[in-house]
Amino acid sequence: MTRHLFLEAAGVKAIPGRPALLGMPLDVTSTYRRGSADAPSAIRVSSDSIESYSPFLDRDLLDAPFADLGDVFVESSSLEETLAAIREMTALVMTASAFPLCLGGEHTIALPVVEALNEVHPDLIVVHADAHTDLREHYEGNPINHATVMRRIAEIVGPDRLIQLGIRSGTKEEFAWMRRHATILQWGPAAERDLLRRIGDRPVYLSFDLDVLDPVCFPGTGNPEPGGWFYADVERLLFALDRVHLVAADVVELNPRVDPSEVSTITAARIVRELLLILGNRP
Amino acid sequence: MTRHLFLEAAGVKAIPGRPALLGMPLDVTSTYRRGSADAPSAIRVSSDSIESYSPFLDRDLLDAPFADLGDVFVESSSLEETLAAIREMTALVMTASAFPLCLGGEHTIALPVVEALNEVHPDLIVVHADAHTDLREHYEGNPINHATVMRRIAEIVGPDRLIQLGIRSGTKEEFAWMRRHATILQWGPAAERDLLRRIGDRPVYLSFDLDVLDPVCFPGTGNPEPGGWFYADVERLLFALDRVHLVAADVVELNPRVDPSEVSTITAARIVRELLLILGNRP
Amino acid sequence: MTRHLFLEAAGVKAIPGRPALLGMPLDVTSTYRRGSADAPSAIRVSSDSIESYSPFLDRDLLDAPFADLGDVFVESSSLEETLAAIREMTALVMTASAFPLCLGGEHTIALPVVEALNEVHPDLIVVHADAHTDLREHYEGNPINHATVMRRIAEIVGPDRLIQLGIRSGTKEEFAWMRRHATILQWGPAAERDLLRRIGDRPVYLSFDLDVLDPVCFPGTGNPEPGGWFYADVERLLFALDRVHLVAADVVELNPRVDPSEVSTITAARIVRELLLILGNRP
Amino acid sequence: MTRHLFLEAAGVKAIPGRPALLGMPLDVTSTYRRGSADAPSAIRVSSDSIESYSPFLDRDLLDAPFADLGDVFVESSSLEETLAAIREMTALVMTASAFPLCLGGEHTIALPVVEALNEVHPDLIVVHADAHTDLREHYEGNPINHATVMRRIAEIVGPDRLIQLGIRSGTKEEFAWMRRHATILQWGPAAERDLLRRIGDRPVYLSFDLDVLDPVCFPGTGNPEPGGWFYADVERLLFALDRVHLVAADVVELNPRVDPSEVSTITAARIVRELLLILGNRP
Amino acid sequence: MTRHLFLEAAGVKAIPGRPALLGMPLDVTSTYRRGSADAPSAIRVSSDSIESYSPFLDRDLLDAPFADLGDVFVESSSLEETLAAIREMTALVMTASAFPLCLGGEHTIALPVVEALNEVHPDLIVVHADAHTDLREHYEGNPINHATVMRRIAEIVGPDRLIQLGIRSGTKEEFAWMRRHATILQWGPAAERDLLRRIGDRPVYLSFDLDVLDPVCFPGTGNPEPGGWFYADVERLLFALDRVHLVAADVVELNPRVDPSEVSTITAARIVRELLLILGNRP
Amino acid sequence: MTRHLFLEAAGVKAIPGRPALLGMPLDVTSTYRRGSADAPSAIRVSSDSIESYSPFLDRDLLDAPFADLGDVFVESSSLEETLAAIREMTALVMTASAFPLCLGGEHTIALPVVEALNEVHPDLIVVHADAHTDLREHYEGNPINHATVMRRIAEIVGPDRLIQLGIRSGTKEEFAWMRRHATILQWGPAAERDLLRRIGDRPVYLSFDLDVLDPVCFPGTGNPEPGGWFYADVERLLFALDRVHLVAADVVELNPRVDPSEVSTITAARIVRELLLILGNRP
Repeated sequence: MTRHLFLEAAGVKAIPGRPALLGMPLDVTSTYRRGSADAPSAIRVSSDSIESYSPFLDRDLLDAPFADLGDVFVESSSLEETLAAIREMTALVMTASAFPLCLGGEHTIALPVVEALNEVHPDLIVVHADAHTDLREHYEGNPINHATVMRRIAEIVGPDRLIQLGIRSGTKEEFAWMRRHATILQWGPAAERDLLRRIGDRPVYLSFDLDVLDPVCFPGTGNPEPGGWFYADVERLLFALDRVHLVAADVVELNPRVDPSEVSTITAARIVRELLLILGNRP
Repeated sequence: MTRHLFLEAAGVKAIPGRPALLGMPLDVTSTYRRGSADAPSAIRVSSDSIESYSPFLDRDLLDAPFADLGDVFVESSSLEETLAAIREMTALVMTASAFPLCLGGEHTIALPVVEALNEVHPDLIVVHADAHTDLREHYEGNPINHATVMRRIAEIVGPDRLIQLGIRSGTKEEFAWMRRHATILQWGPAAERDLLRRIGDRPVYLSFDLDVLDPVCFPGTGNPEPGGWFYADVERLLFALDRVHLVAADVVELNPRVDPSEVSTITAARIVRELLLILGNRP
Repeated sequence: MTRHLFLEAAGVKAIPGRPALLGMPLDVTSTYRRGSADAPSAIRVSSDSIESYSPFLDRDLLDAPFADLGDVFVESSSLEETLAAIREMTALVMTASAFPLCLGGEHTIALPVVEALNEVHPDLIVVHADAHTDLREHYEGNPINHATVMRRIAEIVGPDRLIQLGIRSGTKEEFAWMRRHATILQWGPAAERDLLRRIGDRPVYLSFDLDVLDPVCFPGTGNPEPGGWFYADVERLLFALDRVHLVAADVVELNPRVDPSEVSTITAARIVRELLLILGNRP
Repeated sequence: MTRHLFLEAAGVKAIPGRPALLGMPLDVTSTYRRGSADAPSAIRVSSDSIESYSPFLDRDLLDAPFADLGDVFVESSSLEETLAAIREMTALVMTASAFPLCLGGEHTIALPVVEALNEVHPDLIVVHADAHTDLREHYEGNPINHATVMRRIAEIVGPDRLIQLGIRSGTKEEFAWMRRHATILQWGPAAERDLLRRIGDRPVYLSFDLDVLDPVCFPGTGNPEPGGWFYADVERLLFALDRVHLVAADVVELNPRVDPSEVSTITAARIVRELLLILGNRP
Repeated sequence: MTRHLFLEAAGVKAIPGRPALLGMPLDVTSTYRRGSADAPSAIRVSSDSIESYSPFLDRDLLDAPFADLGDVFVESSSLEETLAAIREMTALVMTASAFPLCLGGEHTIALPVVEALNEVHPDLIVVHADAHTDLREHYEGNPINHATVMRRIAEIVGPDRLIQLGIRSGTKEEFAWMRRHATILQWGPAAERDLLRRIGDRPVYLSFDLDVLDPVCFPGTGNPEPGGWFYADVERLLFALDRVHLVAADVVELNPRVDPSEVSTITAARIVRELLLILGNRP
Repeated sequence: MTRHLFLEAAGVKAIPGRPALLGMPLDVTSTYRRGSADAPSAIRVSSDSIESYSPFLDRDLLDAPFADLGDVFVESSSLEETLAAIREMTALVMTASAFPLCLGGEHTIALPVVEALNEVHPDLIVVHADAHTDLREHYEGNPINHATVMRRIAEIVGPDRLIQLGIRSGTKEEFAWMRRHATILQWGPAAERDLLRRIGDRPVYLSFDLDVLDPVCFPGTGNPEPGGWFYADVERLLFALDRVHLVAADVVELNPRVDPSEVSTITAARIVRELLLILGNRP
């Protein structure tokens, strides 16, 4: 009987100095097409149809031990309790000196993860790749959801420790906020340099909303926005992150239900493989 | 109860100096996959899932009044009568000093629109973005349909007032005609300059067949042609048009039935938003 | 009654000095989504929705005679017999001084084709465009299948007569083999020059696995790999091949079942049209 | 007897609504290689070796009347008096409803020009193209010279009305100032759009230090800095300026003595021709 | 004693099927800086400081026999006689089945060369690379000189057999003529394709005015025009010409006197080496 | 009295963990224009006309201590003794845990430097940027000179530890050697990635022959070769080197005599400043 690549390659206990996969199938605040709760298991299953070797990084997952800690339990009746569980789980992984790689679920999961990280890394840089600003003060009356998550995170780390990439949709107020705080970084051909200069030697958290990709590349998401990234843009980001002190990451907002071709899920699995190899390459 | 963005933002009466949306759900001459008659309503519904603010133009639809005049009645038994109705409606809008933004329907609707415009603007430039030449002398025995519409328009304005962009499919004779009349303009990185030079100070009509986009970006159309535009190419065109005297536009050939992912419809709605903001920016 | 363009334009007997279409609906070794056996007939049917004229090459299929010899019979119970039939058929076409254009089916069909070609052209260059290395020593215990086919071909022509383009997935060992034998050629903006320099005056076989295209452009294939070619990359390859002594080609791994939009099949039909025009342009 | 193109084409009295050339041969604060005082006459002489027609703008200087008002008198013993003379002369030209095009001389001349312009255009945008920041608080004990001129100008118009392009040399403090006030705009392929967005409908003054060009293109200047612009970058700027409300410009820091090949002077003359055609194209 | 590479490698008698160097030190119609008469000998001397091997073409001059027939005698008192001598000499070389490579001298020499070629190749395509149009009807009262030479050539071969590249300076009338006859071809990244498509199978004459290069790359010429080609643009042209039926070429308007650094002369020598290797590669 | 920036900023004794400038004014094997012996002092003098702050690296030389150890004594009568002195001096600097930055002089000086480095770093990678192969077996009868230096170095470290960039001139045999040993790396837009992948974690020596730059950018060198690098290419290399374990570097073959404009010397001084900041940034 064949099991999936990620499961086969992974251990079930966090390994010091190595990445740890954590599923976070939260999907309660979405306003449009639901389905991101299915993402962690879909990514794990799809890992079978990709190779363990990454020609891009020239490393093999089979040579790079990591743990798969399964999914955080989502208490559907209480967002608050679920966020607390995620925060606690993230803290535990870090106590074990492992690097959390969180599979959403909706983007909201990034908030408790950053809360936990910020305790340990008070100079943490948050790199946020997304089509949407996610910077609203409130959204439909609530302060905590996928449309406000980066605003809440900015309140924790400060706008000067937030770097936003790929943003192309939001309200006039959100864009004004981004310009005032200069959080946006244009993702052109030499942008890696600017990113690395801004990061310097500080620890980095990557919050990767898959809808930063063009719907052309990645139809499997709830709020498609034309004019986005192609896979080559992701590769340039991954390459830059391989040169900094990346301490944790999330990959969120895959909705496997709306892309029956499975290309979106395979793409997500491949990005997860690259991040496992990058997180596992710290000396 | 929520209504769609375009309807909520729009008035129902043409406003002098402002754009006016006009649905034209004509779909009678199509030879391949039918469905473009559903486009006007699909675009209006999809306007809900996009923001009113355009970061690209840095303007907000909520600050830019426009009218939505509903759909022109399509008399399915008589193409001639429908074209006359479109011509008349377009003329009325112009009499009100408003700028028509016509939602197809098939490309044939551009003919009566140009007839009406040409009365008022005898030096009108027609900018035609399309995958196909649409320049046949006749098609399946008929002189007026989606495959001949630009030939008919060229007879009205003259080939020297026609600029064609994105064309990549047609007969040998059609391509020979385009070369002879030099109507084609290569859409490369600095092509905006050539376009603006050719237009000068003259009034412009944009006839935008959505299949100019690569099927990759825009599967929701009847005759997909590989090798087409990406959204960045559309943005360069929009940016150039924001610098000329645009007096009217059409957006045609969306077939919402063949793209169940809705990405095509969302892309069309976004292009319509940008054109509303451009038409509404005339001083 | 309308028949498809390729059938209408084609003769049923190989014409000396002209291309001959050969369907090879083999689909027995695939490990993942089956369906490539349907490709030859799907491509022929889809040829109806494309023009006979290629603006890219400025030539018309109606002026360029070719033959369509139908499909090689696939003996499903015996891979060996089917491969022998393909080898024989290819040899026959060459005896008639015609240029075989083989429509897969799975990639395995390239092996007997190259065996036949190599008899006649002992200095044959094999240009291999693919997302995958296809260079395994064995795959699931078998020496001959879609994952080993290029290794077998390399054993026939030698690694120095193999040029690989677009490869982005494989095992560590396969990539090490490619680096050791320097078979890979980076497909950047000026890569045509390197390709033409490497080929020189020698006869060329193109083995074109359609999954070299990004899944974005070409979802209709069994093993989609993000980060691939766009249609413009194909055009640069076609343009280069129009300048060398191309003696045969295959187009393989279309799976029409997994792309209901038909865009993949139309793209494949268009590539076949261009190759017919290129093979038919030898002086 | 032949006279130079600029002189032949020009009238000697400011023409309402047309550009007026003004030489400003100031060269007293330069610290390194002197010679910019010779620039106005060198540019006039070199105008002979260029055509009156600009293919880039598709306009001819012979169809675009302008004035050449000769040189402002430079009182070498008193910088203060010379600056006052420049300020007064600029004001006079504007009183005549003409558009000043000032030929330096050293960059310091931009200060009195902006002082005069700012009286008339209180929302003036200053576009500053230069290799150097020119933003020191003091330089060698003096508050007014070529190294402080933009700091003084920023004090007049405010940093939010200053846009800086091409800057690649300065002190740590100057770069920190530019980042804090976000005056810098990266000059990449789509930067015209950002520039036009920032300018909006406001009147523009261009202060063009020729050393923004790479020393490769333009060796004839006092402080060459590698890594600069090529002529194509200048063309993109000129094209953008042709679309805004340009009310005046300067072209400074040509030192004809250090480029015996005359290429620098010819390049300067050509930029002046383009600016005359742009300033003369206001409706 | 060392002799120069070109002389050492060359024979002194035209070899059938091989290139033949012909110096044409004409410099009588120049209006600005004289000196192009020195070019043939300067290029020969400079050939010493370049290698005989071209990595770009992967061929070695030592393996590619050619002749150096010395210089055509220039009768300075009679332009007419000199042009007749050039015409005759060119005809003689072609009678010997050799390929003339003509070293100017001023551009005027191209006229008698084309006259001779056109006798033998009535479908000759003239590819003209230059900064200047060279299309005046008359220049300073004379019908034959460096400013009219392409107009005269167009009268011989017809405008439809003239392709112009790199042009960026001329009168309004000359540019109008080029647009009317569509002789210009934009030299962008994929322009080789357009060039090869336009040429097809017809024989080609290259008339290469070195001032098509940016003065940055090539200061050693009489009329420098900013905004020109870099060496990479030349390489793309050479690469395209290596794929067509090139029957002759000229390289004109080097003025070694105005570039004491010798970079211009070395660049010219290198272009001559590449053209010798291309002309010598015809099968 | 002003002294030059490098001297003012530098100490005269090697500082552990910091760079140490070493002049190596050797110029005995040059075959063409002599003058590189003047380079070390010319670079030091020119350091006055550049800023101490690098916007590219966002670091200031005044915050980054380094030593300037003056020039190695060149015994002109004996190449062997001079090379021994260089080897010894380099070894001494490394004994002091400092990072040597060697200013040529001719390229030959790289040989003793690598000999000394290789003792301490047995896995040293040599990154060689140059227009020329420098790979001859012998040159004019001698085994050790500027044309053979990289062949000798390859014999020490092995071809698999040599990476060559920018090479565009050499003999057929040298290019064959480079292809056989795959030492060349194409320096395109994403080449930094390939470079960093090849280097991995190993210590790096940069041998930077300034003629890798296009003669356009850098006329001040003995053997100008068209078609070279622009300053942006250097920046991409510097940026990559800032991410590896750089242990030493040389900057060679400036000939200040042949570029009276001083642009070459200023460019060299700026590259030296960047390398001082990179070598001084090791944690």
